[in-house]
Amino acid sequence: MLTLYTYFRSSAAYRVRIALGLKGLPYASEFVHLVHDGGQHHSAAYRAINPQQLVPSLRTEEGNVLTQSLAIMEYLDEAYPDTPALLPADTLGRARVRALAQAVACEIHPLNNLRVLRYLTQELSLSDEQKTAWYQHWIREGLSAMETMLTSSSATGRFCHGDTPSLADCCLVPQVFNARRFACPTDAYPTIERIVQACEQLPAFVQAAPEQQADAQA
Amino acid sequence: MLTLYTYFRSSAAYRVRIALGLKGLPYASEFVHLVHDGGQHHSAAYRAINPQQLVPSLRTEEGNVLTQSLAIMEYLDEAYPDTPALLPADTLGRARVRALAQAVACEIHPLNNLRVLRYLTQELSLSDEQKTAWYQHWIREGLSAMETMLTSSSATGRFCHGDTPSLADCCLVPQVFNARRFACPTDAYPTIERIVQACEQLPAFVQAAPEQQADAQA
Repeated sequence: MLTLYTYFRSSAAYRVRIALGLKGLPYASEFVHLVHDGGQHHSAAYRAINPQQLVPSLRTEEGNVLTQSLAIMEYLDEAYPDTPALLPADTLGRARVRALAQAVACEIHPLNNLRVLRYLTQELSLSDEQKTAWYQHWIREGLSAMETMLTSSSATGRFCHGDTPSLADCCLVPQVFNARRFACPTDAYPTIERIVQACEQLPAFVQAAPEQQADAQA
Repeated sequence: MLTLYTYFRSSAAYRVRIALGLKGLPYASEFVHLVHDGGQHHSAAYRAINPQQLVPSLRTEEGNVLTQSLAIMEYLDEAYPDTPALLPADTLGRARVRALAQAVACEIHPLNNLRVLRYLTQELSLSDEQKTAWYQHWIREGLSAMETMLTSSSATGRFCHGDTPSLADCCLVPQVFNARRFACPTDAYPTIERIVQACEQLPAFVQAAPEQQADAQA
């Protein structure tokens, strides 16, 4: 069985949980708590699994360990071709879906993850107010660009690309979850809000949400 | 003909220039200066091409515009299957190459690009010393993890994956270029250094280098 190394609040793990759900692939969870024990992702045991000390990692059915959420989702799409596809069949559509996913995974999330926020407050002694302003700034820049990408293309449908969820939706929903968590207004992005609402009607998205995970704290 | 919207010092554009060279695909360049005119990527004309206001963008032969360097490189690999492949044929190898590419494109570079450095100095009033420490910190974290990923796998060859250059090398070389530019020591990463040296013997890498571009300043 597939094994996912996950943390309930990790945005990148959340993406892969959605993808596994959309593809209907059962998996076991290994919980890696990013706060407890000084961060279990820094333990020697986890470093041996993932030298990047990041979640998620995926152990394949054959026992190979994969890292990086986008690479893991592409792997699932290639290794399980008989399950619902996360990328469209046409080359241009695939490029568009990947670009939307990367607009989150390369432009917004890397600036706002835990290790970066820690650097801001611990190394740079920034105030909570400055940290929040930083967080909201990159969300605003990124979601604003994505809203334009979505509204300016006729390829946008019920979801980011057409009427079935894709890799792009797997990335967008966790990012909007984070935006809400940090009180970033999203009403300026009506297309994004509409798509997220459509996603939230699907069991795969519901079941992948942080609060649904066994490691979620009260 | 393919048209690349590029800036000589852009690490992401540099990746795509290498990929185009490795695949032997001729292309026209549209230069988007990230400093001149308050940043030509912020112009209305360029925003209409790429709402993310980032380089690179690629105009396909059919006139479609693609964004995000990783998505563009995957597009080139899919749209020009008769040229040298940037991804291996096997699913597991593809996942590994993508993860290595993303270890740069999702973990290191997003923290060190121009707009982020500007935020540090302009919005947060950090000193040059603090900015450099930030830059070097994320390079060190990222390259250190990549070195372990490379040394711990028998799939590493003359290049990041086997003996032909891949998407991973297209990302690694510009990142090491940046490391050198900001005086980050790389001698702790002998495998990375060895691979970069192998890449630098190939014309595609040489010709894609910032100093070889027509828009490079003296």
